[in-house]
Amino acid sequence: MAKVVNIDKCFEKFNDTYSPKIIGELNGQYVMVVKLEGDKCPWHTHKNEDEMFYVLEGILDIYENKKKITANAGEFYIVYQGKEHRVVPRGHVKLLLFEPAGISHTGSVKSEITKSRFDRLDV
Amino acid sequence: MAKVVNIDKCFEKFNDTYSPKIIGELNGQYVMVVKLEGDKCPWHTHKNEDEMFYVLEGILDIYENKKKITANAGEFYIVYQGKEHRVVPRGHVKLLLFEPAGISHTGSVKSEITKSRFDRLDV
Repeated sequence: MAKVVNIDKCFEKFNDTYSPKIIGELNGQYVMVVKLEGDKCPWHTHKNEDEMFYVLEGILDIYENKKKITANAGEFYIVYQGKEHRVVPRGHVKLLLFEPAGISHTGSVKSEITKSRFDRLDV
Repeated sequence: MAKVVNIDKCFEKFNDTYSPKIIGELNGQYVMVVKLEGDKCPWHTHKNEDEMFYVLEGILDIYENKKKITANAGEFYIVYQGKEHRVVPRGHVKLLLFEPAGISHTGSVKSEITKSRFDRLDV
């Protein structure tokens, strides 16, 4: 249903990390929020999906192939399909994610953070 | 090309209003920023595209069919395909937009703000 979504309020509704929550869906894409803490994201690749990491709070290091990219609050970075990557938060990080509905967030890699499907937040 | 995009800095690079600037592209979708000021947006409909308005600064009134929705900074609203709508900023408003690449921002309606294509910002 169409409604106004307050992003700060979304973050108040959950505390688990590495578990993206769907807060909007449009044109076959999910808008999601996620909290990250700790170095838990494995190297993985999305064959067919580009992935946007928009940092709302904190600092995120993104490792992509041999590069290291740092995104601060108010900055985003797009990892394009086929690029092997992993992300490491410095302390606690809040992200807005934009990616195709049905994406597996750790690609074909299964790890402790892998979810079979994303939660939908009651926004 | 993949790079870190600082959204505040994007807004420093232009002053025209009602002229969305592409700052990212993924999965066939544009990420754009736009400044709005004045009541200039005509009623229009996107037949096949959903449109996300994410308010970064200011207050945006969205008229959709017979409803009026108000989105404040830190809030977003998705106008789904087929819904006739217009937006009216209260004062000066900064938005982040997500919508399919190739969308016409005023649908099939031509008005003073209609662009044949969007500018791409050198981010």
